[in-house]
Amino acid sequence: MHAICAISTAYGFGGIAVIRVSGEGSIAIVDGLFRGRVTLAEAKGGTVHFGRIERNGEVLDEVLCSVFRAPHSFTGEETVEIACHGSLYIQQELLRWLIDAGCKAAEPGEFTRRAFLNGKMDLTQAEAVADLIAAQSKAEKDLALSQLRGSVSTELAALRERLLHFTSLVELELDFADHEELEFADRTELQTLADEIEHKLAALLDSFRTGNAIRNGISVAIIGAPNVGKSTLLNALLGEQRAIVSDIQGTTRDTIEDTLVIDGILFRLIDTAGIRETNDTLESMGMERSRRAAQNAQIVLLISDGTGTKNEDITVNGTLIHVLNKADIGAAGEGIPISAKNGEIEALKRELVRVAKELMPTSAVMLSNVRHYEAISRAHEAILRVQQGLQDNLSGELLSMDLQDCLAALGEVTGQITNAEVLANIFSKFCIGK
Amino acid sequence: MHAICAISTAYGFGGIAVIRVSGEGSIAIVDGLFRGRVTLAEAKGGTVHFGRIERNGEVLDEVLCSVFRAPHSFTGEETVEIACHGSLYIQQELLRWLIDAGCKAAEPGEFTRRAFLNGKMDLTQAEAVADLIAAQSKAEKDLALSQLRGSVSTELAALRERLLHFTSLVELELDFADHEELEFADRTELQTLADEIEHKLAALLDSFRTGNAIRNGISVAIIGAPNVGKSTLLNALLGEQRAIVSDIQGTTRDTIEDTLVIDGILFRLIDTAGIRETNDTLESMGMERSRRAAQNAQIVLLISDGTGTKNEDITVNGTLIHVLNKADIGAAGEGIPISAKNGEIEALKRELVRVAKELMPTSAVMLSNVRHYEAISRAHEAILRVQQGLQDNLSGELLSMDLQDCLAALGEVTGQITNAEVLANIFSKFCIGK
Repeated sequence: MHAICAISTAYGFGGIAVIRVSGEGSIAIVDGLFRGRVTLAEAKGGTVHFGRIERNGEVLDEVLCSVFRAPHSFTGEETVEIACHGSLYIQQELLRWLIDAGCKAAEPGEFTRRAFLNGKMDLTQAEAVADLIAAQSKAEKDLALSQLRGSVSTELAALRERLLHFTSLVELELDFADHEELEFADRTELQTLADEIEHKLAALLDSFRTGNAIRNGISVAIIGAPNVGKSTLLNALLGEQRAIVSDIQGTTRDTIEDTLVIDGILFRLIDTAGIRETNDTLESMGMERSRRAAQNAQIVLLISDGTGTKNEDITVNGTLIHVLNKADIGAAGEGIPISAKNGEIEALKRELVRVAKELMPTSAVMLSNVRHYEAISRAHEAILRVQQGLQDNLSGELLSMDLQDCLAALGEVTGQITNAEVLANIFSKFCIGK
Repeated sequence: MHAICAISTAYGFGGIAVIRVSGEGSIAIVDGLFRGRVTLAEAKGGTVHFGRIERNGEVLDEVLCSVFRAPHSFTGEETVEIACHGSLYIQQELLRWLIDAGCKAAEPGEFTRRAFLNGKMDLTQAEAVADLIAAQSKAEKDLALSQLRGSVSTELAALRERLLHFTSLVELELDFADHEELEFADRTELQTLADEIEHKLAALLDSFRTGNAIRNGISVAIIGAPNVGKSTLLNALLGEQRAIVSDIQGTTRDTIEDTLVIDGILFRLIDTAGIRETNDTLESMGMERSRRAAQNAQIVLLISDGTGTKNEDITVNGTLIHVLNKADIGAAGEGIPISAKNGEIEALKRELVRVAKELMPTSAVMLSNVRHYEAISRAHEAILRVQQGLQDNLSGELLSMDLQDCLAALGEVTGQITNAEVLANIFSKFCIGK
């Protein structure tokens, strides 16, 4: 494919910046602008060369060029990475010189897209590259890295391979439709395989809740009566004055959200309005939001200050943690004792981490991508139909349709079956330069 | 020196980021975290290796490591540059792992400082690295690159070398003070050399005005009567609605500054309040600023719209360019015809570039650094005293003092003579990672 170029490092001014050039003729194009002790055309793959970028007598910069020869590069194509000084002017000018010399400006994700098209990685791995770049916590990084290293693909590819074998056998029977007695695909074995696949797909779908939580943070709602110190706790957890706190009941009206990483786990904290009997319309609206937050959160911190206010009308679907605030001024009652005001919240942090780890699955392979979740849901529905069909002694023809549906859905995840629109959609979310 | 590490690319989230590790044991430290097809310890200098960063079974990222062996690196020390995925989490975590493994976090400019201390570059070249990173225009880039490639150093080193020779001869005479007739240093030759040095230093000092203009932009004041379209012209030059424009006289009150690059030259535009007779105090204060801007600018654009208002009380020290605005609606008079409103300003832009190029010196070597200017000023004063001393037939002892002053000042520029405070001051202005 034609040579493309882009700035691959973060936008802005830094010590150095890296411009990546990949595709047919990349080495020759950069070589035309490069003056060093050796020519890049003669350079071995995996070597770095110092020199200057020069055109018509004008020197642009002194640079380091790393040369990669196909297929031993990220994209699988010949590639040069130019490390120049990190002036914005130099970065942009170098890009312009490369475009003048015949490169096209890379589109978002185009390098990774080429890695996919050249068979260097499958689609789940390509998507993992974007996730890895966006990783904000250890759990997110681990998830993306495991996916990049092929955990999802390997699991699905093995299942798909075995299912494909049986589907071929079932379809072979159709060619001998006159001989109704012929059964190449042993129905008992197929039943066993279908059960196994159904089981694994269900587990993967289950893992999505956690995988998604790792990517977007585990939601933690802070709930309680007015003035028990919910916003003070939010601020203490974040280590900054995020929410306005005062002695006035009902200070917090909107729900306030922010994220926090503890021990490598991303939490999404939601501070809510205090819950009490009220006739104030605005306050009631705030409380309605508090109730919804409690209902949807994976963890609910129910804060009290020992003054006995109960919150019995709250529905909690996640894990409930009772917290007793104002322990420093003698509050007594149920829950983990903390003092939000004095920042004495270590015990609560430890409990948050403990509960979060319980929420993490034991399975090594985890779904975190909505696109994967959606396709695997379809594969799961199809395999359920196959199971039912086998029980109902359905004809090979009908069975084959459901098997094909399942294969297609599984193939979509790894990109063995793709359409242009899906690809365009995936790579458009990438940053330029990767 | 001990190993140091820092993120060398711009702060933020990008496709990739580069972490630089330099100093004794760098390769071994990175190797301890690196799992690839080869060990870095065995890698040749100037080679790039793919692998993963791993510690106690936890994989942090898949990376490319470039290995440089002393003295063939930027710093002159053994160096590894690690290109990782551009997640902020991964960047910071990798830095932490390196520090855990024995690296120190690099201070601002510490890599360049080491390049200086290891004799890879002199002080003017080290300073040029910072200038190059900050370059915003072609002229700035050219200036910094020429300095990085040693233009200032070469010029000064040659002068200093010859002066040093004569100084030694003069000081040798002092050892033979009893023999007053002895003159190792030929006074006529010394006079010629002193004249040459004085001439070159004066030229360098002259070049500072331009060098400084290139770094900070050539100042262009936009001056004229109210409502001739000064702010409209500013907006047209910048291609954005920077200044508020209206039909009301006196719309602009404060001077408004912004920068613009035309043909690689940086201009600093200053829009001013219109000048006319007025009793309004605020407006008078604005006009006082306009007068000062006109006085200090290197280029003054005097705008008229042909209605005959004169600005005869304006003092201009730089180059005056008459501009006739509203040429599209038939304004007639002196100056380059433009229509700021319709963006017809090409002729004016060409004239600005032409005048700016005239302001540029013919000398290849240019001062742009205040520190250099200050030291060379002292060298210049000392050499003037030497010239005077020679004319006055001063004793070798007194002559020698002035010669030493001149040598010391010249040596400060290139860093042959340094003190810790000056060094600390220079490198503290660098970004971290360079």
